[in-house]
Amino acid sequence: MLSEWNGPARAACPKKSGPMPMKIALCQINPTVGDLAGNHARIVAFARRAAEAGADLAVFPELCVVGYPPLDLLESAAFLDDVERTVERIAAAVPPEIGVLIGAPVRNPEPVGKRLFNAALLFEGGEKVGEVHKVLLPTYDVFDEYRYFEPGDVCEPIVFRGLRLGLHVCEDMWNNEEQAEVHLYDANPIDALAAAGADLYVNISASPFALGKHEARNAVIAESCREHDLPFVLVNQVGANTEILFDGDSRVHAADGTRILCAPSFEEYLLIWDTEADTGPCPMKHETTADLHDALVMGIRDYYHKTGAFAGALVGLSGGIDSAVTCALAVEALGAEAVTGITMPSAYSSTGSVDDSRALADNLGIAFHEVPIVPAVDAFGAMLADLFAGTDEGVAEENIQARTRGVTLMAVSNKFNYLLLTTGNKSEMAVGYATLYGDMNGGLAVLSDVFKQQVYALAEHINQRAGREVIPQNTITKPPSAELRPDQKDSDSLPPYDVLDTILRLYIEDLLDLQEIVHRTDFDPALVRKILTMVDRNEYKRRQAAPGLRVSAKAFGYGRRIPIVMKRTRSLSEAETTD
Amino acid sequence: MLSEWNGPARAACPKKSGPMPMKIALCQINPTVGDLAGNHARIVAFARRAAEAGADLAVFPELCVVGYPPLDLLESAAFLDDVERTVERIAAAVPPEIGVLIGAPVRNPEPVGKRLFNAALLFEGGEKVGEVHKVLLPTYDVFDEYRYFEPGDVCEPIVFRGLRLGLHVCEDMWNNEEQAEVHLYDANPIDALAAAGADLYVNISASPFALGKHEARNAVIAESCREHDLPFVLVNQVGANTEILFDGDSRVHAADGTRILCAPSFEEYLLIWDTEADTGPCPMKHETTADLHDALVMGIRDYYHKTGAFAGALVGLSGGIDSAVTCALAVEALGAEAVTGITMPSAYSSTGSVDDSRALADNLGIAFHEVPIVPAVDAFGAMLADLFAGTDEGVAEENIQARTRGVTLMAVSNKFNYLLLTTGNKSEMAVGYATLYGDMNGGLAVLSDVFKQQVYALAEHINQRAGREVIPQNTITKPPSAELRPDQKDSDSLPPYDVLDTILRLYIEDLLDLQEIVHRTDFDPALVRKILTMVDRNEYKRRQAAPGLRVSAKAFGYGRRIPIVMKRTRSLSEAETTD
Repeated sequence: MLSEWNGPARAACPKKSGPMPMKIALCQINPTVGDLAGNHARIVAFARRAAEAGADLAVFPELCVVGYPPLDLLESAAFLDDVERTVERIAAAVPPEIGVLIGAPVRNPEPVGKRLFNAALLFEGGEKVGEVHKVLLPTYDVFDEYRYFEPGDVCEPIVFRGLRLGLHVCEDMWNNEEQAEVHLYDANPIDALAAAGADLYVNISASPFALGKHEARNAVIAESCREHDLPFVLVNQVGANTEILFDGDSRVHAADGTRILCAPSFEEYLLIWDTEADTGPCPMKHETTADLHDALVMGIRDYYHKTGAFAGALVGLSGGIDSAVTCALAVEALGAEAVTGITMPSAYSSTGSVDDSRALADNLGIAFHEVPIVPAVDAFGAMLADLFAGTDEGVAEENIQARTRGVTLMAVSNKFNYLLLTTGNKSEMAVGYATLYGDMNGGLAVLSDVFKQQVYALAEHINQRAGREVIPQNTITKPPSAELRPDQKDSDSLPPYDVLDTILRLYIEDLLDLQEIVHRTDFDPALVRKILTMVDRNEYKRRQAAPGLRVSAKAFGYGRRIPIVMKRTRSLSEAETTD
Repeated sequence: MLSEWNGPARAACPKKSGPMPMKIALCQINPTVGDLAGNHARIVAFARRAAEAGADLAVFPELCVVGYPPLDLLESAAFLDDVERTVERIAAAVPPEIGVLIGAPVRNPEPVGKRLFNAALLFEGGEKVGEVHKVLLPTYDVFDEYRYFEPGDVCEPIVFRGLRLGLHVCEDMWNNEEQAEVHLYDANPIDALAAAGADLYVNISASPFALGKHEARNAVIAESCREHDLPFVLVNQVGANTEILFDGDSRVHAADGTRILCAPSFEEYLLIWDTEADTGPCPMKHETTADLHDALVMGIRDYYHKTGAFAGALVGLSGGIDSAVTCALAVEALGAEAVTGITMPSAYSSTGSVDDSRALADNLGIAFHEVPIVPAVDAFGAMLADLFAGTDEGVAEENIQARTRGVTLMAVSNKFNYLLLTTGNKSEMAVGYATLYGDMNGGLAVLSDVFKQQVYALAEHINQRAGREVIPQNTITKPPSAELRPDQKDSDSLPPYDVLDTILRLYIEDLLDLQEIVHRTDFDPALVRKILTMVDRNEYKRRQAAPGLRVSAKAFGYGRRIPIVMKRTRSLSEAETTD
């Protein structure tokens, strides 16, 4: 998807007159982690296209040679040797008329310190003409950069064809005194580069998507531009690598902070900025639910294609909202012909569960099968009759149903080489309203960072986009139920989802606890305590969950590290009784 | 388990004459993560016992107030408030005649930097008389300390009752120029404290167990003593928190490096050192398989009891070596009355699988059930007959068997509130020789850091310890098989385990790759490549595995972070074809 797009060229905007005119290509590419050959090919192809378009400089994202996040691949000496050779080969393969700025790990030559730098490398005519090391190393949430990298020293601008480039890497732009909520770092590369006489900023990033991140980028970049009267070029990775989604959102801001060029989110793009061109402001539509939708579709598509292993995708359809939305997103990501839906009614399933599933499959035009689970459920009942004699039916029997479905789905997945998508949402995953080895089965958890109320918004959005009923209305309006016992409803065990989602958001994303949540919401303290305890106790389930697509600032999984074995004491009065 | 043990008092050893005689209590305790009330009670109880024994100073492990590793509990402001109150209450509750040195996170008062320090806090008579911040923050393998903590400045010794204590925290002792393989840090607190006039070193640690770690501690401490002619007190956490095991191994070394006192590993202990007493060298038996055994038993016991949630433990018995060893370890950890074994024969099970399982259960004296899985397997076959029509039997059908066992075990676990222990070893987990949602089901993976050859050694050790056949001889001698198809043997798909384990150890623990492994072993490059690719491809299974007890320097799980979505290019020739 190589194309050029220069935004609506309307009113001229204030712009600092650079010392030299230049065309800069923002190469918003989608690298695959570890795929040195593939990333090499992608970088060289984009650089050639940029050269053909007359660009002086092609700018690529942070660590684009290895893909972000490379994690512990960075601990393999053989991998690092291959990275070095790949960098050399990229430098040699790029047309001599264009400079190329790429991101790669480079070895730290000093005998003391972390063994690598997170570097931006500038090549021209096959020669390295500039090297900058990332100064601020994010080590929080999903980021573990200090695990691998030694921080760089704040450095001077790099002169390229007469322009003093204020090169820096991702986090280096975020330590803004006005904007940052927490000040983790002493250094401020943005201030230092301006003081050292940069003509413009060039930031290469692998900055993950999260709802609201686009606006945060706008704010911090505009602030830096205004503060130092300098234009700003940001080139960010796009695409998904396992659970982490990158929106791209590459852009150019003028020295007054106005965003004057922007690449579309969630797709590869080549964007050329002519520093001399009159360019008006660049408005882009960013709407929460649409972004959420696009991010999830990209996440499914990249997981599926980058593993390169699957002959289709599979979704267990319950007739409920979560599986319907998951399935519709899979169809948008992979095409209807690649998706199969299976409904697996039990003795407790409503007729709606099959009918609504069938209606969804018809609306989507996907293959659809019905596999009643009663025979296996009955077989388990008979097998365990002696052992369970005299006990009451309960969670064990409910879970047998969910797990029988899980076995059925995995059998189909194994037989036909389908990627099984699991459908649990963030609200359910939070409180453990899911069966481990049952409905939690799957290779990718599409909605595990999407609260239940957001799932409803996605359903409405999907129908609106399509201009027709894709998600059946009955699926949207009926009360949610796991249908594991007669007349079961989610509301039997959980508060209404607006209450639940509010508590969960404050606890998980805002890191507040009992007292503060009660203070802010005026909810019943006993209810809040019950929900927080459910979240804590179900860490063991989440530890074994499929990787989930991260769309918030705090998703379950890699970026949220909670002990399984722990006793969380929630008030001092509890502690006071022990001594 | 509060007791005193002063080691064999034999020949007097050279010892630096301290400026003041003192009795120091090494309080090797087993805290639970997050359990502020419980940890408070434990610390105060040990301090009182130490005071009764006439000690001047009671020394506790690193972060003992919160338990190690607290992970993201450290990001909760409410939790940190509770920690502060707990520290105050500990200080107030300790007898005034004894000083108490505890580890806790403390807030960083500076506006810039990570929000916490990893601190050693010295209290006397309810007042804080010393505070030291950890300088070297391990951020590798299972350690994420820079995620939370700002490094401290190297500081002066703290004078306590006339003795200049060279206080420091865990990693601070490991940056020895001679001993460290990689030099990650500029600072060296050990050198700095000696230069500043310390009379002895006091290190508080939460230093995890791994095979060989005991010897590494001996070496680095002895070297520091000799280098600076100072005695050394190390107090280390004991016990398990989720996957991380702590052996304790607290000790005192004399100024000439001789270890003169040592606490037994894998249990809580109160050890008193009288700086004036003549104490001989302290030999302790550390034997690889015995340590491995004791570590795993402690790991099972602590997982089971610290969650406080289980009415028993459950093991699926296949008649094979892994389930037999897992079950025997569970019996040692929890007692025979707490353990239930279930054998679940299929159409392909040998008679040995049931007979050997029954013999094991008889030898161990545990409850034992036989639940044939044929009815459910047949039911799944019938349910899927239409969908699978015309396909060959293969992995899908094999996995149905494993998953039917998984559902059966989880049903029993749910019904009777048993902790299901999963039995896969490190060799199998490495190459994906395990069924996700099948035999991988369970709350704790007992052997997932134990290579197959080590499992055999454990079996022999268990029988030797018992002085009788606990693990049936037939289980030890028969060729390993998953028994998922007729006459299946592990050796059909895998090389012999001595070859496999060698390759895996070089790849996973030594971080070597294809070329270097072939160079060192002279194994067939195609075989090595096949095994490394299997390891890479099965990351998706391991991501959903139960937490496993870590006994090596590189276990699967928290300390090994490998992308699921990745394409690993293993030679430059592959890359060269793409451009």
